Amino acid sequence: MGRALAGALLAAGHRVTVWNRTPGRAAELLERGARGAASVAEAVAASEVVLVCILDYADVGTLVEQGGGRAAWQGRTVVNVTNGSPEEARAMAERVAGLGAAYLDGGIMAVPEIIATPGAFVLYSGAPDAFEAHRELLDSFARSVFLGTEPGRAALHDLALLSGMYGMFGGFAHAAALVRSEGGSVAEFTTTLLLPWLTAMADALPPMAAQVDAGDYAVTGSPLAMQVAHDSIGDVSRAQGVSPELFTPVFALMRRRVADGHGSEGFAGVVELLARR
Amino acid sequence: MGRALAGALLAAGHRVTVWNRTPGRAAELLERGARGAASVAEAVAASEVVLVCILDYADVGTLVEQGGGRAAWQGRTVVNVTNGSPEEARAMAERVAGLGAAYLDGGIMAVPEIIATPGAFVLYSGAPDAFEAHRELLDSFARSVFLGTEPGRAALHDLALLSGMYGMFGGFAHAAALVRSEGGSVAEFTTTLLLPWLTAMADALPPMAAQVDAGDYAVTGSPLAMQVAHDSIGDVSRAQGVSPELFTPVFALMRRRVADGHGSEGFAGVVELLARR
Repeated sequence: MGRALAGALLAAGHRVTVWNRTPGRAAELLERGARGAASVAEAVAASEVVLVCILDYADVGTLVEQGGGRAAWQGRTVVNVTNGSPEEARAMAERVAGLGAAYLDGGIMAVPEIIATPGAFVLYSGAPDAFEAHRELLDSFARSVFLGTEPGRAALHDLALLSGMYGMFGGFAHAAALVRSEGGSVAEFTTTLLLPWLTAMADALPPMAAQVDAGDYAVTGSPLAMQVAHDSIGDVSRAQGVSPELFTPVFALMRRRVADGHGSEGFAGVVELLARR
Repeated sequence: MGRALAGALLAAGHRVTVWNRTPGRAAELLERGARGAASVAEAVAASEVVLVCILDYADVGTLVEQGGGRAAWQGRTVVNVTNGSPEEARAMAERVAGLGAAYLDGGIMAVPEIIATPGAFVLYSGAPDAFEAHRELLDSFARSVFLGTEPGRAALHDLALLSGMYGMFGGFAHAAALVRSEGGSVAEFTTTLLLPWLTAMADALPPMAAQVDAGDYAVTGSPLAMQVAHDSIGDVSRAQGVSPELFTPVFALMRRRVADGHGSEGFAGVVELLARR
């Protein structure tokens, strides 16, 4: 990912200095015009904006240490796109502020292959002035979305989006297992049926989201009680030799919501069972 | 749903005779030109194609009984869009064939409101001649998709699509709970971030589907081992007071796949843990 981001900066005409823990991994970037730094401190000294893309926050801490003290960091902007929790982001923002630098926490919603293409976007939270000052540079990576000054917001939204993706991927896995269980082509099913179906059903998400915000779950499609009247998906899955383990939890949650007296309402009310308002 | 389907037939210029268990519920259809039948037998006698849309298969059996014997059913086509299992569809196909009628089992992938709009489609399996003969009539409801002669296929694909939808809805519910836990607008999150993200990530489904068909899960995005290295979604959810119950099962499945020695492969291999090939 680091190479994809640095490559996008070079492609946009920015001056880029790179440092990597494993010497030699930056070879292609150097060929494309990047300058190589012999140390973290040299890399920090070279640029006003310091982009950090590494495995986890423990490593970010080490890099900040190696970058130097207040004299080295003062006036710079740290853009940290390392994956972590909102809490880790908040702690890092405080530490970086203590060194006199501005902090932006970033969540990259893309695989490296789609960096600098229209499908990608990057979430940011932290110092608004730094975001505005460097927005053009950040836009080299992907569409930039600023979520506010609370530094943990990008990380939280990043994880929320990932959880949404894993829901969709899990639904795909169950559907694929069912179709395969009767010898059907999963590729044909996915292209001709599942994708158009998910696209149509995604239209239900914004109205459900508005219901969550309002705490009012008046039914729009089928009432929950009708949706859980039969466990057809579970029963048929078991009959086909397919484990219903990815479906059971959402069905159980819907049943709990009905048992709580909300059977005439819509699906979105299950959010109330996941977390108190 | 029955009213929506009959209304679509009327709108397409077909002659429609309706019968409903609850007298009076067809009033609007009668005003629009449908004829009312006083009994099931009268409804069956009135038309070559008999559309059955009712709560479950036990009721379908009762209706077939009330329709009359072989003399009443001979030469007709039964289009049964009642929700059920592949096994129930196969049994009904046999019973209807025994009465000398053709059988089509249908799975309606739509809510009543989108019948006869481009987003809707209906799955059919069963008698291919009947499907071809009445295709124009069936197309009044929505795009018609014929899945083959095995009568249970429409029901199985219907349930597979529903399981995919519940995966996406479950992912939405978890994401919504996370965003709400920090006071964010779920509607804004869903419209500006989740929908574009899910749309981009849906591009990964066809290649994953091809992998399931081939049984070859060479990594395309992030390897599974990297995806499960940290349970950030679970940890952060708990810290935010959000139950991770909808996310935990897919994460556990990914971890089992890694433990089985497939950590360098992609996500789609989890299908192998849901059902044997």
